Amino acid sequence: MATIRDVAKEAGVSVATVSRVLNETGYVHEDTKKAVTSAIEKLNYSPNEVARSLYTRKSKLIGLLLPDITNPFFPLLARGVEDELRLHDFRLIFGNTDENAEKEQDYIQTFQQNNVIGIISMTNQLSKATYQDLSIPVVFLDRTSSSLPSVYADGKEGGRIAAMEMLKRGSRRITLIKGPSHIQTAQDRFKGSLEVLSASEVDFYVMSTSSFSFTEAEKWAKELFGKYEDTDGVIASNDIVATAVIHEALRMGKSIPNDIQIIGFDDIPHSSLLFPPLSTIRQPAYEMGREAAKLLMKLMKNNQMKENSIQLPVTFIERSTTRKVDDYV
Amino acid sequence: MATIRDVAKEAGVSVATVSRVLNETGYVHEDTKKAVTSAIEKLNYSPNEVARSLYTRKSKLIGLLLPDITNPFFPLLARGVEDELRLHDFRLIFGNTDENAEKEQDYIQTFQQNNVIGIISMTNQLSKATYQDLSIPVVFLDRTSSSLPSVYADGKEGGRIAAMEMLKRGSRRITLIKGPSHIQTAQDRFKGSLEVLSASEVDFYVMSTSSFSFTEAEKWAKELFGKYEDTDGVIASNDIVATAVIHEALRMGKSIPNDIQIIGFDDIPHSSLLFPPLSTIRQPAYEMGREAAKLLMKLMKNNQMKENSIQLPVTFIERSTTRKVDDYV
Repeated sequence: MATIRDVAKEAGVSVATVSRVLNETGYVHEDTKKAVTSAIEKLNYSPNEVARSLYTRKSKLIGLLLPDITNPFFPLLARGVEDELRLHDFRLIFGNTDENAEKEQDYIQTFQQNNVIGIISMTNQLSKATYQDLSIPVVFLDRTSSSLPSVYADGKEGGRIAAMEMLKRGSRRITLIKGPSHIQTAQDRFKGSLEVLSASEVDFYVMSTSSFSFTEAEKWAKELFGKYEDTDGVIASNDIVATAVIHEALRMGKSIPNDIQIIGFDDIPHSSLLFPPLSTIRQPAYEMGREAAKLLMKLMKNNQMKENSIQLPVTFIERSTTRKVDDYV
Repeated sequence: MATIRDVAKEAGVSVATVSRVLNETGYVHEDTKKAVTSAIEKLNYSPNEVARSLYTRKSKLIGLLLPDITNPFFPLLARGVEDELRLHDFRLIFGNTDENAEKEQDYIQTFQQNNVIGIISMTNQLSKATYQDLSIPVVFLDRTSSSLPSVYADGKEGGRIAAMEMLKRGSRRITLIKGPSHIQTAQDRFKGSLEVLSASEVDFYVMSTSSFSFTEAEKWAKELFGKYEDTDGVIASNDIVATAVIHEALRMGKSIPNDIQIIGFDDIPHSSLLFPPLSTIRQPAYEMGREAAKLLMKLMKNNQMKENSIQLPVTFIERSTTRKVDDYV
């Protein structure tokens, strides 16, 4: 492989000059620049990013922290981040933290050791101060923060929409499943639904749950139909929990959506593959990933930029666990 | 942050000595080593990986190439790779190639620019020679290769098991869905099933398909029941295709598994969440990821090691789309 010395020799200039052209630092005469550029092309030289990052103190590496890539909501976010960054020649180092503060700290440290120039984090077990003390820009994704830039979906509005669609389609004995209390996004959607149901004339039952685990959700679904057998509409805390409700309703011989309507939250890829396919509130995960990458790149250009967060809209995806609205208007 | 100079000063030795301790090169007296180590601990010094990689020509970065992290089979593989590498302090740079040769080439190049010391690839649009010409070890994952180290599941045996389970459970008019011809792993499982069905006394119908796309699979499922209405067992090319078959069978009012049994391939997380939950042949994706990481680390230690590939066993996961075997033995 050609080295920077080969390029300098070919162009008849010094190594320092080639370096200035590569890093766009200092003055270089236009003709010299051309000579260097054509030498680079001729020799098919590609600068060593590591040497380059030592010289400029800048790498092209971005760190991506996520709780667990095997949770079906995260791959779409990660893919959005990567596709956007790739357009601008950045590369991703990634780590799964399992919502574990020690792992999160450990990854942040090694990211820094690798001269990462920005971090996108979908987890925040550590204090805001830890992130603020880093000398590089950080964007939170799918996490809300008042003091640091973040990109997230409008969960409260999503909760409202779910409740309104449920009412519009004729459910009158509604169950609202409240997700884990330590997850802010779960509470936002819960509050949105609660607001609409409280203002309506229908009966509703709130069921508290402590996780998004499918195995636990199966138990809650059984419990739900034991306690509130004639519920005719379930607003689930997310798509996984909605899946457990579908299974239990089918096991009990209920007809979906005639006897009972079910609405999920997220629109993970799996939801369209269920039988019946799940009606749900879609978070634009892929777009959220792209927006987070764009925001990070802006911050990297201008670290003094006032932090601003981006809230993306959610939408109702009508599939087959809800009735057609025409039947009820 | 403490620098290597601070450590040297604290320990009362030269920077070169600290460097020798850090990189475990050259002779350093045991007492000196202790002094350096305690200085490092006292100052909470962490070496800059970039400077270190320039000095030692070795980074701690591994490149991971995969077709598409949003395909539900890949996150488990990626997670296995990461968990194993993390135990040994390696970090992953990753890229989605979309089975596109140009993207694959582009990622390999930037991996090299970042002094990546090994690559795990779940895609191989490029020639074997391209990989062999790299100066760093490469392990293929979920891809078979005769000339390069690879880690994959025993697909042929998986195909055999699927057919044997189908027969054992009483299906007599079997449909065998043949996956895309350009995907080696799809052909292996097909051949395994074909071998067992050919040697049996039952009728069977082979249906050729060109992708693993769910939308296309829905069309094929409709076509299948049009052409072979009384088929009583379907061996699908993977779990996504099996999902489409389940949907179509339910739409037609067939009872699963009484009227028709269905067996998938892969055991993606979604399969246990279907209704009815899918019986399938499990590829140990997470374990495959870990094994690939282990093999790569061995190769990095000893680049002259004879390439060897690792084939992992597959298993039948009995859920609710197949009948109990007791009823037929």
